[in-house]
Amino acid sequence: MSKTNAGRFFEDYAVGQEIVHAVPRTLSGGERALYHALYPARHALQSSDEFARSVGYSEAPMDDLIAFHSVFGKTVPDISLNAVANLGYAEGRFLRPVFAGDTLTATSEVVGVKQNSNGKSGVVYVRTRGENQRGETVLSYVRWVMVRKRDLASAPPQTVIPDLVDHVAPVDLPIPEGLDFTGYDFALAGEPHRWADYSVGEVIDHVDGVTIEEAEHMLATRLWQNTAKVHFDTTARAVGRRLIYGGHVISMARALSFNGLANAQLIAAINSGAHVNPCYAGDTIRAWSEVLDKAETSAPNVGALRLRLVATKGRAGGLRDADGKYLTDILLDLDYWVLVPR
Amino acid sequence: MSKTNAGRFFEDYAVGQEIVHAVPRTLSGGERALYHALYPARHALQSSDEFARSVGYSEAPMDDLIAFHSVFGKTVPDISLNAVANLGYAEGRFLRPVFAGDTLTATSEVVGVKQNSNGKSGVVYVRTRGENQRGETVLSYVRWVMVRKRDLASAPPQTVIPDLVDHVAPVDLPIPEGLDFTGYDFALAGEPHRWADYSVGEVIDHVDGVTIEEAEHMLATRLWQNTAKVHFDTTARAVGRRLIYGGHVISMARALSFNGLANAQLIAAINSGAHVNPCYAGDTIRAWSEVLDKAETSAPNVGALRLRLVATKGRAGGLRDADGKYLTDILLDLDYWVLVPR
Amino acid sequence: MSKTNAGRFFEDYAVGQEIVHAVPRTLSGGERALYHALYPARHALQSSDEFARSVGYSEAPMDDLIAFHSVFGKTVPDISLNAVANLGYAEGRFLRPVFAGDTLTATSEVVGVKQNSNGKSGVVYVRTRGENQRGETVLSYVRWVMVRKRDLASAPPQTVIPDLVDHVAPVDLPIPEGLDFTGYDFALAGEPHRWADYSVGEVIDHVDGVTIEEAEHMLATRLWQNTAKVHFDTTARAVGRRLIYGGHVISMARALSFNGLANAQLIAAINSGAHVNPCYAGDTIRAWSEVLDKAETSAPNVGALRLRLVATKGRAGGLRDADGKYLTDILLDLDYWVLVPR
Repeated sequence: MSKTNAGRFFEDYAVGQEIVHAVPRTLSGGERALYHALYPARHALQSSDEFARSVGYSEAPMDDLIAFHSVFGKTVPDISLNAVANLGYAEGRFLRPVFAGDTLTATSEVVGVKQNSNGKSGVVYVRTRGENQRGETVLSYVRWVMVRKRDLASAPPQTVIPDLVDHVAPVDLPIPEGLDFTGYDFALAGEPHRWADYSVGEVIDHVDGVTIEEAEHMLATRLWQNTAKVHFDTTARAVGRRLIYGGHVISMARALSFNGLANAQLIAAINSGAHVNPCYAGDTIRAWSEVLDKAETSAPNVGALRLRLVATKGRAGGLRDADGKYLTDILLDLDYWVLVPR
Repeated sequence: MSKTNAGRFFEDYAVGQEIVHAVPRTLSGGERALYHALYPARHALQSSDEFARSVGYSEAPMDDLIAFHSVFGKTVPDISLNAVANLGYAEGRFLRPVFAGDTLTATSEVVGVKQNSNGKSGVVYVRTRGENQRGETVLSYVRWVMVRKRDLASAPPQTVIPDLVDHVAPVDLPIPEGLDFTGYDFALAGEPHRWADYSVGEVIDHVDGVTIEEAEHMLATRLWQNTAKVHFDTTARAVGRRLIYGGHVISMARALSFNGLANAQLIAAINSGAHVNPCYAGDTIRAWSEVLDKAETSAPNVGALRLRLVATKGRAGGLRDADGKYLTDILLDLDYWVLVPR
Repeated sequence: MSKTNAGRFFEDYAVGQEIVHAVPRTLSGGERALYHALYPARHALQSSDEFARSVGYSEAPMDDLIAFHSVFGKTVPDISLNAVANLGYAEGRFLRPVFAGDTLTATSEVVGVKQNSNGKSGVVYVRTRGENQRGETVLSYVRWVMVRKRDLASAPPQTVIPDLVDHVAPVDLPIPEGLDFTGYDFALAGEPHRWADYSVGEVIDHVDGVTIEEAEHMLATRLWQNTAKVHFDTTARAVGRRLIYGGHVISMARALSFNGLANAQLIAAINSGAHVNPCYAGDTIRAWSEVLDKAETSAPNVGALRLRLVATKGRAGGLRDADGKYLTDILLDLDYWVLVPR
């Protein structure tokens, strides 16, 4: 019997199954520093203990996407090693802040399966939870991937498609305990724009661009212990190039969005997300955002914005062509909620 | 109104203006480790808590240039986003050590403006201060940059050129409280050369070279939250190549100077500095130093050396041609004071 | 007199000589995070404080190879600056865990010298010890290198070849105090394979590959303050390419071996090791292991495996040709002991 992990195939998943993902991870100031070196991340709340204290934290939390990537990375050997495609995200909720010293583990429950009509693969839906060392859930999201079958002759399972909300409702947005933007310092945060200054339908071109290098995306992807070989081994794909981890594009676009959304301090929820086209080293990533919705919250002077964050490897422009297809230079279409001062 | 930062233009600066720079930053062992990965930094005082304790510190301070870059990076969106050139530094003083856990903020005061005779741009002088979370100034320096005008028809301001000293006088050199080189361990520091072993006029070729890669300088520049697009976006300049942040060259040259100046443990002051030619990935950086002056200090067994640190992308050789112009392979000409054991 | 380090030549070494290596180093979570970014390292014991506590530690120790590289790096200016080749390792023992906050220093004793018959160089054997801030030895190993003579006319020293064991005997394997694998969580560790599941002679292809980039190996090598110029300066070698630090290949292969050896949590000893062929950026590193021996230990539910770890830049296949020579795509042949749950 081979001792190496061949990954799971479509027929290895059954609705209700619970998968404990391996390799718990303790985060430190090292991961935070690397995040700042890998992305142009500048949100003050994750950068400064003092700023964090001024809005109700004991110290600066980790960037929300550090928690996301750490949890996501753990799921790769069990969920997406044989995945043909990462199809979507839903119901992502950032439930508790993660601090230096916290240890994260991840567990997934299979919540849906559907064999494709070609009989060669199927779609698997999992709800993944990240927990800290106290057993508190820090993050929860649903992801679905297309996975190859091991044995094409195996019988298809009964189709189960989970009932997923189109987007997290404002009333369900997690607000960190104690968060209070009353004493928020806009000068230190970098921009004067409050919740009231953003209007639904408004589009912001984030202006800056970053040309990606191989070493950077590999450092980032490994940091989250995501070891899918397509990201590291130039011989693993017919095209002879490494495919960049989609999460690298999410973090790059989110960091670029500081320019215009410097006060979008926290990610509260991910409503949906699609990695539209592959990203390769040499691509120059730009980003633009559209305000999709606005909501009040129960926390003092904290408002919520629902944003579309689009990463492109061309100039910022449209999103879809006349037939409704994504333009070929679009990399990411992410729908998420952020918390901003009112 | 666009929500993104277009940067300030020449007419946006007025003498006496105070600019609070955004995004305070808490430093940790992560930034220190990255500094050691990005540069061949080996000065024992910043590398070892034990060595630092043996010379009067509670623990190892951050490399002085970590403080410099962190503060400098914060000023970029307000000072040099539309800068045509970074013209010079003066009166840089490293006033207090920075430790892991400290949070740095930066403020600049405009101390001079002078419109260029072409009417298209002008020179802006700012005195920048970096502060820790206790409001103590850790670093102060003057920098002047050439900035474009927004409106060429706008009237020129009254010319004010600040009165800057040619170099920080020995009596004004900041000495960290408690610094005592009496028990200094030369074997652990790496070289036997004391203050008395260096003579004015002495030139030291630091021998080693490092060929620069794109990923490295981008990691470094982002780590200091310096997001000037010319350092990241290959499409941002006509030449189609990223321009390397001048501070990357300073840190590389300072680290290379360990070989011959291993006991130059601390930077006390920066007298002046010029980024003479652009640096690009693929360049091999070498460095040489010249001892410009020597001074005693009030601290036990602590002497000061005034050094010229020159970074070159060619072989170490001369500095200027027959007409007094810098040779084309010179990258940096830095005049600074260091503290060494006597 | 030049103040820069020209390195030692063969005639500078004498048996019995003790060399204190410079630049003590305090490690933090930053070095750990960088290790995880540089290598696909996933062993749970070094990744998670909680997992470490479950097997008898107070917190997660640093990866054993962080200790090895930190100590090795310090020896470079004194031992291998003029080395023609790094010939071998023996009697490597990992005596105590290293934690964040520990400060490492290194000392070497010359234990053998032998001039080569060509009269141009000789072999120097040193026993290097790494110590923590309490003066406890954390690591000890013998290394031998071929070093050039300064003066070809100098008389050869009396040949002394140290008496080195072929491999560390099971009874001499250091076991961390308190290590207890009784409550070991195989699900969190990532694989179900126990000590009993491995048989002598078994070969494991670790499947994954990583294509190396220049920036990565330089970051890694500098992190250990190893400043041998062949790793950094493209102009330093006739071939015009940087030579990758052999330790980078060791860490990469060890991390890749997680896939099949996820429970090989700790390195107890290095029996021997050879860097067989040079590694360059662009090479895709793969690894395979062979179980050479098995042993019980005195610690609860802790067994030892003696492994051959082979790194190759080709497809995993053989090791030597018909004449007994290493195949040209073999990079590393390492013989070491690991501790695994029984």
